[in-house]
Amino acid sequence: MHILLTNDDGFFAPGLQALYRELLEEPGYVVSIVAPESQRSASGHAITLFDPLFVVEHPVEGNGKGFAVRGTPSDCVKLAIQAELVPKPDWVISGINLGPNLGTDVFYSGTVSAAMEGVLAGVPAIAASLASFEYIDFDPSAKWLAEFLKQEGRSHQDGLLNINFPGQPRETWQGVRVVRLGTAVYNDVFESRIDPHGRRYFWQGGTLSVERKTDTDLAAIAQGSVSITPMHSDLTDYPKLKEWGLKSLV
Amino acid sequence: MHILLTNDDGFFAPGLQALYRELLEEPGYVVSIVAPESQRSASGHAITLFDPLFVVEHPVEGNGKGFAVRGTPSDCVKLAIQAELVPKPDWVISGINLGPNLGTDVFYSGTVSAAMEGVLAGVPAIAASLASFEYIDFDPSAKWLAEFLKQEGRSHQDGLLNINFPGQPRETWQGVRVVRLGTAVYNDVFESRIDPHGRRYFWQGGTLSVERKTDTDLAAIAQGSVSITPMHSDLTDYPKLKEWGLKSLV
Repeated sequence: MHILLTNDDGFFAPGLQALYRELLEEPGYVVSIVAPESQRSASGHAITLFDPLFVVEHPVEGNGKGFAVRGTPSDCVKLAIQAELVPKPDWVISGINLGPNLGTDVFYSGTVSAAMEGVLAGVPAIAASLASFEYIDFDPSAKWLAEFLKQEGRSHQDGLLNINFPGQPRETWQGVRVVRLGTAVYNDVFESRIDPHGRRYFWQGGTLSVERKTDTDLAAIAQGSVSITPMHSDLTDYPKLKEWGLKSLV
Repeated sequence: MHILLTNDDGFFAPGLQALYRELLEEPGYVVSIVAPESQRSASGHAITLFDPLFVVEHPVEGNGKGFAVRGTPSDCVKLAIQAELVPKPDWVISGINLGPNLGTDVFYSGTVSAAMEGVLAGVPAIAASLASFEYIDFDPSAKWLAEFLKQEGRSHQDGLLNINFPGQPRETWQGVRVVRLGTAVYNDVFESRIDPHGRRYFWQGGTLSVERKTDTDLAAIAQGSVSITPMHSDLTDYPKLKEWGLKSLV
């Protein structure tokens, strides 16, 4: 089994490296890494059309290959598969990201977009995130993922699983919940400032509102569970398509 | 009615300006522009968290406001609405883009992502694109959109409409089709080169394969029709959610 690892935190990010080490332990796995050379968080599904994509090979252990790309997470997966930097993978795994990728925030997520790029290329994918910026221990999540892949990998043949891990010690995790994407609402998103030259600028940030619904990934993480959300790649709104299709538009 | 115009080709791009001029003609419309200061094609749903967002006001005609942002298309819509650069719009319209935004390519599209950002903020949105790089006349598409908004705008209260116009003279358009998103498949996506310093790099591009299915936006444009696809903002795969929900995972 050939696994392609990528992320949006960069080739040498601890979350990716922890997962890499864990997967290497499995007999029969070949693990390659094609990841951005530097931090590319919040890059969404951006791709690089109008700049050259530099690629540097980094030797990795085992029989896999390693490449750092001066591009976005989606560039990495496209390059890996379509430019055949590595043999066609059986899985694309993106992460483990430092910080959550939940609800509507998946649109902004380089981690999730890289996994989606796998799906668009016909390869099943997992986006994995540690939903914390404070409790930073990737090893329990990496072990959980390796075990999950062994047990459930065979039955999952297409599409994307978005998995978030609670930012707390393994022994306090409140089980696993399979849930829909929630709506991530932020307050005080922009802070307005004036630079020393009198120019106005904004910093983007904000604080996440508490999720009121209980059947979402945001709620699952808030209660300390691992959240799994199956995602698809078709943004067509079929009920509306049907409605509109009944009108005559010329 | 307050319309927020944006795009990914930049504040002064001809496609946006053509639509702006057309909408200004409608009595009772207030039109504001918040758009990137330069070309941001293929930027997907990227947002800018780790750089300052500079904003420069450009006077526009009528009662609207104009701001050029050193950021992505999604940054522009977020700033416009959440930093209240302009009054809350009744519509977000993104475009008219130079070049198609069809099928799975919507994931990469700054144009479509900016419109989606409107939807995430609770504002109905249209992404509009002229599906050609050769036949470049935005005026017929701009006129069509202004007319469409007058006739259909009131019945469309939420969600995103992705509209592409055929790159050919208005009198040869083959009507309007309401269709699902197709699958955009490219051949020869990457060209590998060596720079004068011996470093390997790639250019991303490729040629679009012919769409074989007939009920898609790609097919509609290929036959010379205007394509309209209603899009939603929930990437949860509900059938799979149900399947997975039946398993016990701990």
